[in-house]
Amino acid sequence: MTNAYEHVRRLLAKLPGLGHRSAERIALHLLVEHPEQLAPLLDALGGAAASLRRCRWCGNLCEDDLCAVCADPRRDRSRLCVVERVTDLLALERASAHSGLYHVLHGRLSPITGVGPERLNMASLATRLDGSGEFPPVSEVVLALSNDIEGEATCHYIQETFLAPRPAVSASRIGFGLPSGTGLTHSDPATLKNAMEARRRWA
Amino acid sequence: MTNAYEHVRRLLAKLPGLGHRSAERIALHLLVEHPEQLAPLLDALGGAAASLRRCRWCGNLCEDDLCAVCADPRRDRSRLCVVERVTDLLALERASAHSGLYHVLHGRLSPITGVGPERLNMASLATRLDGSGEFPPVSEVVLALSNDIEGEATCHYIQETFLAPRPAVSASRIGFGLPSGTGLTHSDPATLKNAMEARRRWA
Repeated sequence: MTNAYEHVRRLLAKLPGLGHRSAERIALHLLVEHPEQLAPLLDALGGAAASLRRCRWCGNLCEDDLCAVCADPRRDRSRLCVVERVTDLLALERASAHSGLYHVLHGRLSPITGVGPERLNMASLATRLDGSGEFPPVSEVVLALSNDIEGEATCHYIQETFLAPRPAVSASRIGFGLPSGTGLTHSDPATLKNAMEARRRWA
Repeated sequence: MTNAYEHVRRLLAKLPGLGHRSAERIALHLLVEHPEQLAPLLDALGGAAASLRRCRWCGNLCEDDLCAVCADPRRDRSRLCVVERVTDLLALERASAHSGLYHVLHGRLSPITGVGPERLNMASLATRLDGSGEFPPVSEVVLALSNDIEGEATCHYIQETFLAPRPAVSASRIGFGLPSGTGLTHSDPATLKNAMEARRRWA
């Protein structure tokens, strides 16, 4: 096949959830089967990239200075739910499982793949907990991280670094209901609600 | 979520093999998690779209006037394999299952979804079979279409419209080995080879 096609296929195969065959199928769909769909997609992605950014307060996707959750005065700003990814935040929102604010780490600690706290949206957790002129201090933290070793390690790191020095903050970890070895994104709303209700104290 | 994000997610969800959740995951990956991957992907897709076209003879993806298969003088130009998609052609090439040329329909007849022969690369089959100054006439046709009702209907249409008026052309349909209800793209090379060897006469 052509170099231009191979280049597209290799870049597509790097996207989450796509393998060699699905990347090939999408590349050929956009380049020969339905080329009329390509320009709108390029425009949409380019336009979105230009208008979207991370919320400066929580890390969620947003178009303005603050995301819709942080900007909503009806949310309980004293309660903070820490998640790994924006997809996890969206899953909890779809389940109406949390009425406070979020903090999106954009990943989790993974010594094996070399992801340390400096690669995550981690340092700003201190300001999140202590509050700013704009936002009050946090009194309750729910760690809604994956139920696996890296999620556990990330919880431990947050506990030691941010929660231990702030004993007044009540901390819990999302609990019963989340099947072992899985993340939040693909869980159904009922499971997410149960897990949020059954959260257990963390350290 | 924002309108710009929703627009991207809806367009991504139209791509083959992507559903609501996988489109969301890819959109957030490109827009907030790994925005550094977006510009190279947009460049590659835009560049490929500018340099790629359908081969004027067979419909395969190509950068020049003819695709690599049609331009290769070592291929047996008297044998023609008709496939639904470029992904099917690639699967047969990976299996080294056909040494002649191809004809890519870019779909198949589907009365239910309103796909008639005029929406496919079908009319040019007459010229393919009769040959041009450049290419010899075809003496053998292998119909390598899906093993399902729409594939069967497409074979019947080709038989009645193109093959019946040309009794000198030997026609067969790819046969044993292709599991019922599936297409070619995800079949393994051994199955594709068996199916090509066990092709049966068609009408």
